[in-house]
Amino acid sequence: MKTRKEHDFLGEREIPSDIYYGVQTLRAVENFTITGTQISSCPEMINALAYVKKAAAMANMELGILSSETGKAICGACDEIISGKLHEQFPVDCIQGGAGTSTNMNANEVIANRALELMGHEKGEYKYCHPNNHVNCSQSTNDAYPTAFRLALYTKLGTLIEAMEYLQKGFAAKGAEFADVLKMGRTQLQDAVPMTLGQEFSAYATTLGEDIKRVCEARKLLTEINLGATAIGTGINAPDEYSRIATAALKNMTGIDFETSENLVEATWDTGAYVQVSGVMKRVAVKLSKICSDLRLLSSGPRTGLNEINLPKMQPGSSIMPGKVNPVIPEVVNQVAYDIIGKDVTVTMASENGQLELNVMEPVIANALFNGVDMLHRACRVLQDRCVQGITANRERCRQLVENSIGIITALNPIIGYEKSAGVAKEALETGGSVYELVLNHKILDKSKLDEILSAENMMHPRFIRN
Amino acid sequence: MKTRKEHDFLGEREIPSDIYYGVQTLRAVENFTITGTQISSCPEMINALAYVKKAAAMANMELGILSSETGKAICGACDEIISGKLHEQFPVDCIQGGAGTSTNMNANEVIANRALELMGHEKGEYKYCHPNNHVNCSQSTNDAYPTAFRLALYTKLGTLIEAMEYLQKGFAAKGAEFADVLKMGRTQLQDAVPMTLGQEFSAYATTLGEDIKRVCEARKLLTEINLGATAIGTGINAPDEYSRIATAALKNMTGIDFETSENLVEATWDTGAYVQVSGVMKRVAVKLSKICSDLRLLSSGPRTGLNEINLPKMQPGSSIMPGKVNPVIPEVVNQVAYDIIGKDVTVTMASENGQLELNVMEPVIANALFNGVDMLHRACRVLQDRCVQGITANRERCRQLVENSIGIITALNPIIGYEKSAGVAKEALETGGSVYELVLNHKILDKSKLDEILSAENMMHPRFIRN
Amino acid sequence: MKTRKEHDFLGEREIPSDIYYGVQTLRAVENFTITGTQISSCPEMINALAYVKKAAAMANMELGILSSETGKAICGACDEIISGKLHEQFPVDCIQGGAGTSTNMNANEVIANRALELMGHEKGEYKYCHPNNHVNCSQSTNDAYPTAFRLALYTKLGTLIEAMEYLQKGFAAKGAEFADVLKMGRTQLQDAVPMTLGQEFSAYATTLGEDIKRVCEARKLLTEINLGATAIGTGINAPDEYSRIATAALKNMTGIDFETSENLVEATWDTGAYVQVSGVMKRVAVKLSKICSDLRLLSSGPRTGLNEINLPKMQPGSSIMPGKVNPVIPEVVNQVAYDIIGKDVTVTMASENGQLELNVMEPVIANALFNGVDMLHRACRVLQDRCVQGITANRERCRQLVENSIGIITALNPIIGYEKSAGVAKEALETGGSVYELVLNHKILDKSKLDEILSAENMMHPRFIRN
Amino acid sequence: MKTRKEHDFLGEREIPSDIYYGVQTLRAVENFTITGTQISSCPEMINALAYVKKAAAMANMELGILSSETGKAICGACDEIISGKLHEQFPVDCIQGGAGTSTNMNANEVIANRALELMGHEKGEYKYCHPNNHVNCSQSTNDAYPTAFRLALYTKLGTLIEAMEYLQKGFAAKGAEFADVLKMGRTQLQDAVPMTLGQEFSAYATTLGEDIKRVCEARKLLTEINLGATAIGTGINAPDEYSRIATAALKNMTGIDFETSENLVEATWDTGAYVQVSGVMKRVAVKLSKICSDLRLLSSGPRTGLNEINLPKMQPGSSIMPGKVNPVIPEVVNQVAYDIIGKDVTVTMASENGQLELNVMEPVIANALFNGVDMLHRACRVLQDRCVQGITANRERCRQLVENSIGIITALNPIIGYEKSAGVAKEALETGGSVYELVLNHKILDKSKLDEILSAENMMHPRFIRN
Repeated sequence: MKTRKEHDFLGEREIPSDIYYGVQTLRAVENFTITGTQISSCPEMINALAYVKKAAAMANMELGILSSETGKAICGACDEIISGKLHEQFPVDCIQGGAGTSTNMNANEVIANRALELMGHEKGEYKYCHPNNHVNCSQSTNDAYPTAFRLALYTKLGTLIEAMEYLQKGFAAKGAEFADVLKMGRTQLQDAVPMTLGQEFSAYATTLGEDIKRVCEARKLLTEINLGATAIGTGINAPDEYSRIATAALKNMTGIDFETSENLVEATWDTGAYVQVSGVMKRVAVKLSKICSDLRLLSSGPRTGLNEINLPKMQPGSSIMPGKVNPVIPEVVNQVAYDIIGKDVTVTMASENGQLELNVMEPVIANALFNGVDMLHRACRVLQDRCVQGITANRERCRQLVENSIGIITALNPIIGYEKSAGVAKEALETGGSVYELVLNHKILDKSKLDEILSAENMMHPRFIRN
Repeated sequence: MKTRKEHDFLGEREIPSDIYYGVQTLRAVENFTITGTQISSCPEMINALAYVKKAAAMANMELGILSSETGKAICGACDEIISGKLHEQFPVDCIQGGAGTSTNMNANEVIANRALELMGHEKGEYKYCHPNNHVNCSQSTNDAYPTAFRLALYTKLGTLIEAMEYLQKGFAAKGAEFADVLKMGRTQLQDAVPMTLGQEFSAYATTLGEDIKRVCEARKLLTEINLGATAIGTGINAPDEYSRIATAALKNMTGIDFETSENLVEATWDTGAYVQVSGVMKRVAVKLSKICSDLRLLSSGPRTGLNEINLPKMQPGSSIMPGKVNPVIPEVVNQVAYDIIGKDVTVTMASENGQLELNVMEPVIANALFNGVDMLHRACRVLQDRCVQGITANRERCRQLVENSIGIITALNPIIGYEKSAGVAKEALETGGSVYELVLNHKILDKSKLDEILSAENMMHPRFIRN
Repeated sequence: MKTRKEHDFLGEREIPSDIYYGVQTLRAVENFTITGTQISSCPEMINALAYVKKAAAMANMELGILSSETGKAICGACDEIISGKLHEQFPVDCIQGGAGTSTNMNANEVIANRALELMGHEKGEYKYCHPNNHVNCSQSTNDAYPTAFRLALYTKLGTLIEAMEYLQKGFAAKGAEFADVLKMGRTQLQDAVPMTLGQEFSAYATTLGEDIKRVCEARKLLTEINLGATAIGTGINAPDEYSRIATAALKNMTGIDFETSENLVEATWDTGAYVQVSGVMKRVAVKLSKICSDLRLLSSGPRTGLNEINLPKMQPGSSIMPGKVNPVIPEVVNQVAYDIIGKDVTVTMASENGQLELNVMEPVIANALFNGVDMLHRACRVLQDRCVQGITANRERCRQLVENSIGIITALNPIIGYEKSAGVAKEALETGGSVYELVLNHKILDKSKLDEILSAENMMHPRFIRN
Repeated sequence: MKTRKEHDFLGEREIPSDIYYGVQTLRAVENFTITGTQISSCPEMINALAYVKKAAAMANMELGILSSETGKAICGACDEIISGKLHEQFPVDCIQGGAGTSTNMNANEVIANRALELMGHEKGEYKYCHPNNHVNCSQSTNDAYPTAFRLALYTKLGTLIEAMEYLQKGFAAKGAEFADVLKMGRTQLQDAVPMTLGQEFSAYATTLGEDIKRVCEARKLLTEINLGATAIGTGINAPDEYSRIATAALKNMTGIDFETSENLVEATWDTGAYVQVSGVMKRVAVKLSKICSDLRLLSSGPRTGLNEINLPKMQPGSSIMPGKVNPVIPEVVNQVAYDIIGKDVTVTMASENGQLELNVMEPVIANALFNGVDMLHRACRVLQDRCVQGITANRERCRQLVENSIGIITALNPIIGYEKSAGVAKEALETGGSVYELVLNHKILDKSKLDEILSAENMMHPRFIRN
C-alpha cells in the first residue's frame, strides 16, 4: 500500500495515498471508538461544512489573504462535496471530544488534499494549500463547527416540517371523513358527553399545526451564527470585514437568512438554540405519543376493547395468538417519542456543562438532534402512510355506545338542574337502565323535549336549549 | 426585643435573645430565600443531626478532647431535639449553597446554646460551649452532614417500606378475592387469552414485593458512613480512634448497622448511594404508575369502557357531568410517580456535578429524596385505603367478554395448528361470528373436545391438551 | 362546633358552619393527602379562579341565564378573593386526581357560600346560589380550570421576566465595569486567547436577554384559552355567545390579550403550551447554571484556583476550615437549575399521558410550573443581590496570567503560520519559557512588530495584522 | 431473481429464494423504517434468540410434541446462528412496534428455513418445519423475546464489567504511583486541606469498584426469566413440564443460572429489571462523568489553570491555536455519560407505559440498553488506554500550591481554636501573606511545634496533635 507521511506537533504518521484526510483525522479516528457511527452518516453536516469552508474561502479571497488560485481550488473541492462526493472521507466518530475540532480538521484536510489535486499537486503538499493556514483561514473550530451544525440542523428540520405537514393533512382528511360519526367523548377514561369522531381527528391536525409553528420558530434561532468569532468570539486572526462577507456568502449559497450574532463572545459558548430546538422536538414527541396512545385506545379490542376505529392491518400480531393484529405503527411512534424525550435530557446536560468561553459538548448535542430529527420525520411519514390514511370508523358501534351511555344526561343539566340530573345518572348506573327511559318514566321531561335535546344533531353540535 | 451580639469572621450581628441559633444560621436564612421550606420540615433530618452530634460528643469525651461537663450538656441538648423539641429553631431553607454547612452550623449553634443553658450559662457564651470548637469537635460538615442525611433517609425509607408492604397486602387480598373471576387478558390493548382477575391483582402484589427488596438493598448502602473523614477524608483534626468510637455510638443509639467507609476520601465526595436510592424510588414510581394506569383502564366506562372492575367512588367527578365519577386516587398516584421520576433527574444532575473532594449539591439531593419518599409512602397508603381495598369485580361483564372473544382460538392452536386457527379468527372477525360456532360449523373439532378445551377451568388454568 | 349539612350524590357530610367550602372540597381534602401543600400556596391561582368565575358570571348575566341578583353576589365574592380574602378557604392538596375538578369545586363552593352571605342567606342554602348550577354555570372544570391555570402562570411568568431583567442589568453593569480588565479566555479549560473580563460578563447579560425573549414568546401561548369549551370542547351547556363574552370580560379585567382557541376540542386536551413554558424554563435554568458554574470557576482559589474574580463573602464556608468562604450563592442557583430541569421531565411525562378528550395530569403540571417559576425568579434576585453586584476583579492576577500564557502565540499565526507557531508553543511548554522571549530569541519577529501584536490594546480588541 | 411465495393471514408475498426470512419479517422491514439500524447490529441478541429457540426445541422434543427429526434440524440451525452465521438475515429495525413479535418471527422464519434445508427440503416448505407451529412451539413472543433480551443483556453486561475492572486497575495503579505527591484538596473549588494525589486516584478506583458491585447485582435480576409463560403468563399452549425443561436447557447451554419467575403473569409484563439495570448504568455514567470532569479540572492550564497533572497528548487541540492540546478523552466520556443518562429517561418512560398483561415498549428499552452498554464499555477502555495510563503528576506545582495555601491553617485548629485560626486566615487573605509566617510573627505557636504540625508527613497523613 502506497502511503504519504504527514506530521503534526505530536509527530509523524503514515497515511495511505488514496485517502484524502490527514494526520489529525487519523488520530481522531483512533481516539474516538465510541459509537461506531461516522460523521458521514449525516450528509447534511458534511455538506454544511463544505458550504462554510467555501464561504470562508470566498471572503478570504475578497480580503486578499488567500490567493485566487488556492481559493478557487478550495471552492472547487467544496463543490464536489456538496454534490455528494468524498463523503466517505469523513470517518470520525459522531461522539467525539474536542468540541468538534476533529470534525473541522477532517473537513480542512479533505478539502486541502482535494484542492491540491485540483491545482495539480499531490496530496500532502500542504505548502500549496494547508488545512489550517488556507482552508481554515480566518476560522476556528469554534465558529466554523457551530455554523455548519446550525446549517445542517436547519436543513434537516425542513424535512421534519414537511413530514409533519404531510401527517397533519392526513389527520385533517380523516377529520372531514368522520365528520358525521357520532361517538362518546371520554375524559379520564370515563364516559363524558357526545362528540364526533371527526372532531377527534381534526384536533390531531390542529395540534400538529401548532407544533409546526413551534418548530419553525425554534428553527429560526439557528440562523444566528458566529462566523468570524474565531476562537472565543474576539475575532482574533480574522480581518475586520471577514464576518460580514463570509456570512453574506453563506446566505447567498444556501438561501437561508443567516445573521451574525450581536455578541460573538456569547454566541461562541451559547447552546440555547439547540436546547430550544430539542425542547420543541420533545413537544412534538409528546403530542405524537399522546395521539398514538389515543389511536391504540380507540382501536382496542376488537371484542374486549373500545373498538371505535380500525387501524389498517400491517402484520400478524402474534407468534401464538392466531388472528391477533396489533397497532404496531402507533406503538413504534410511541417508542420514537420516548427516545426523543430521552435525547432532550442528553442535550440539556451537555448544554448545562459548558464552561467559560466554549461548550465542548456540542458533538453529543449534534448527534442527539440529528438522529432525533431523522427518527421523528420518519415516524411522521410511517404514521400517515401505514396507519392514519387507512383508518376506518365503526359507525354502528360508536352510535350504540352513545345511546347506551349515561353521559348524555349532561345535556339535560341546564333544564332540570345538576342535582336532579345526578339522581337520574345514579339510578341508571345502579339499575343498568337507560337515561332516556328513566327521564320519561319519572316524567322529568316530556318526550318531544327530550327527543329535541337528545337528537343526533344536537349531540354532535350542541345548542344551548333553554328551560 | 432583647438581643445578644454574635460575630463570625464576616462581622457582628444581633440575634434575638430567645433564639437558639446563631449568626451563621442567620446569614444562611438571609442568603437562601429559595423554596420557603425550612429544613425543620424534615424532622427525621433534625433528629439525625442530633444523633450525629451526640455520637461525636460521646467519642470526644471518651478520647479526652471534650470535658465531661460540656460533653454531657451537648448530649442533653441533643436528647431534647431527638425528643422533638427545638425543631422550630432550624429555619434554613431546604435548598442551600455550601454543601450543607448551613444545616450543620444551624445544628451546632442550636445545640451549643441549649447546652450552655443546661450548664447554667447564657446563650452566646461560647467560651463554655462553642458551636465549632465543641459541638463540631472532630467533625466537618463534610462528614457530619452526609452521615445525618444518610441516617434520616434510612429512617424515612423504613416508612416507605412499611407503606409498600401495606399496599402489597392489599393487592394480595384482592388477588385471592378475585381468584375465580375469569376474564380476558389483553396485550397491546388487543384481546389476548383468558386469565383470572385474581392473577392480575396477585401480579401487582408480586411486583411490589420485588420492589420492596430493591428498596431494602439500596437502603443498605446508606449504612456506609464517613464519620471521622472530616474535611476531605484525610481525617484531619480528628483523633485516630474517633471514627471507630463515634460510629459505634451512632450504631448503638439508632440500632442501625452503620459501618465506616473503607475509603474515606472517596466516601466524602461519593453520592452513589443517593443515585441508587433515587433510581430505585423511580423504579417503584414506574411500577405504581403502571398499576394505576391499569386500574384506570380496567375501570373505564361505566358504559363505554372496559368496565371490568369498579373503583370505590371517592368524590363527584365533574362540575358539569352529573353522576360522573373519576378514578381520582389512581390519577393522583400517577402524578406522584411523574414527580418522583423528575426528581431522579434532579438527583442525577446534582450528583454528576460533584467536583474533586466534595459534592456541593447534596442539599438539593436531600430535598428531592426526602420529599420524594414522603410523597411515595403517602401515595401507597392512599392507594390502598381509598382505592384498592374497595375494588369490586364485574364478574358477569368479565365472563361475557371472554365468551365473546376471538382470543380463545389460541387454545386450539396446538390441536388444529396456527394457520387453521388464524383462518377461523379471520372469519370471526369479518362476520362478527363466534369462534365456538365457527369451529363447530366447519367441523374442525367435535363439540366434546371443544367444550373440554374451552371449559372455564381450562381457560383459567390452561392445561396442555394434546391432539 | 356548629355545623351545616351538605350532600352530594355520594351522601351527606357535616361541615363546620364557619367554613366556606363545601362537601366536595371536604372529600378532596380527605382524598389527597400527598404533599401537605394546599392550593392556597399559589395566590395567583386562587385569584385567577376568581377572575374566571367572575367573567363567567358576567357573561351568564348578559345572556340572561343567571339572575342579576345572584350574578352580582357571585361577582362580589370573586372581588373579595381577588383582594386577597378567603384564600385560606382553599385547602385542597396541590397534587390531586380529577384533572382539577377539586380545585374548581373548591372555588365554586367558596364563591357560592360567600355570595349567599352577600345576598343575606346562610351558607349552604344552595337553592339561591348553587356551586354547580350558578357559580359553575356554562362551565366545566375542563375549561374553567385550564383558563385559570393559564392566567395564573401568565401572571407568575411576569415576575420571572422582571427578575431576569434585574439580573441581566446586573451583569451588564459588571460588563461595563470590567471592560478594561484583560484576561485569558479558556476553552475546554485550556488556555486559549486573551479577552476582557467585561466581555465575559456582557455575554451573560446578552444570553439572559435572549432567554427573556424566549420566556415572553412561550408566555404568549398561554393567552389562548378554551373558555366556553365546557366538558370536551363541544361547548355543551354553554350558550352560543358565552365563549366570546366571557373571554372578553376576562380580557378586560386582567388586561391580558386572551383569545379563544380556534379548535376547542383540541384546546381542551392540549398541554403543549405548558410543555413549551417548561422547556423554556429549563433553557433559562441551563443558562443560569452554566453562568454560576463559571462564577465558581473564575473565583476558585483563593490560592490554588483561578482566582480572577472575588465573589462577595456571604457566610463562613466551613465548620472546620477557618477563613474558608464558599461561592454559596452560585451553588444554590445551580441546585435550583437541577430542580427545574427535573420538573421539566415531570411536566413532559404528565403531558405525554393525556388521554382522549382531556389531560387529567394538569395538577402536577401546575404544581411543577408554579413552584419552578417561584424558585427561578427568587434565584435570579438572590444571584444579583447577594453575588453579582458585589463581584470584584483581580486585575493584576488576570494580567499576569495573560502575559505568562502560551495562548498569545495565536496572534502570530497569520504572520508566521500555524506550524511555526506550534513549534514555539511546544518549546515554551517543554521549557517553561515565555512565548515573547522565544520569538525574540529565535528571531522569528523583530521586537517592534511583536510588541505591536501583543499590545494590551490588540489583545483586548484584536485587529488583523497583515504579514 | 428467483422467488418463493409465502403467505400469512394478510395475504401472499414474493420472497427472493436465497433469503432465509419470510413474509412476516418482510412486512416488518417495510413497516419499521425508523432508525436504519437492524437488529443484527447486536449479535448477542441474535445469538440469544438462537439459544432460546434451541432450548425450546430440546424441551419440545423431550416432551414429545416435536419430532426428533424436526427438532434436531431446528437445533442445527440454531447452532449455526450461535457460531456467527446467518446474522445478516435479521434485518428488522431495532425500534419496532409489536413488542418484539417481528424480532421473534424473524428468528422463527430464519431458523425454520435453515432447518428445512438441513432436512433436505426447500425453503418455504413449512409443512415440514413451520415458523410458528414448530420453531415457536410452546412459546409466545411474550416469553421468548424477553428471555432472549435478558440473555443478551446479561452477556453484554459481562463486557461492561470487564471494562470497568480494567479501568479500575488503571486508577489503582495511578493511586499507588502518586501516593507520595502532596497536593491541596479542594472543596467547592475552594482551597481546603492537603492530601495526596494518590488518594485522589485511589478514590476513583474505589468508586468504580462499588459500581461494579451494583452492576453485578442488577445483572443478577436478569437471570429471572419467564420461559413457559407463553402469551400472558398463564402458560397456555405449553405443556406442564416445558418451563422447567426449557429453562434447564438454557442454563446448561449458557452456563448462566437462569430461574423461572415465581409469578409468570407478573414476569410477562414486568420491566423492573431493565429499569434497575438502566438506573445502575446511569449511576456508572454519573461516576465516570464526575471523574472525567475532575481530570479536566486537574489538568487545566497549562499556564492559567490548576495544572496539577498532565493528560497524555492525543491530538492537536485547535485548528487556530497552535500548541493547544485538549483533554479530548475525558470530554468524550462526559458525552457518553450524558447519552446514557438520557437513555435512562427513555427506558423509564417506556417502562411506565406498559399496559395490562404486556409492555409493548420493550424494543426501545432493548435498543437503549444495548447501545448504552456498548458505549459505556468502550468509554471505559478508551479512558484507560488513551488517558489514565499516561497521566503524569506535576509534583513541584502541587507542592508549591500547598505551601502557598491558607487551608493549612485548619491543622492548627485543635490547638489554637477555630476563631484564632480564622483571624490568621483572614489576615493572610487580605495581605497576601503566608500562614506559616503569620503564625510565627504573631507568636501564636513556636517554630518547632508549627513545623511538626505542617510537616509533609503530617499533611499527607494527618495525626491528631494535642494542644
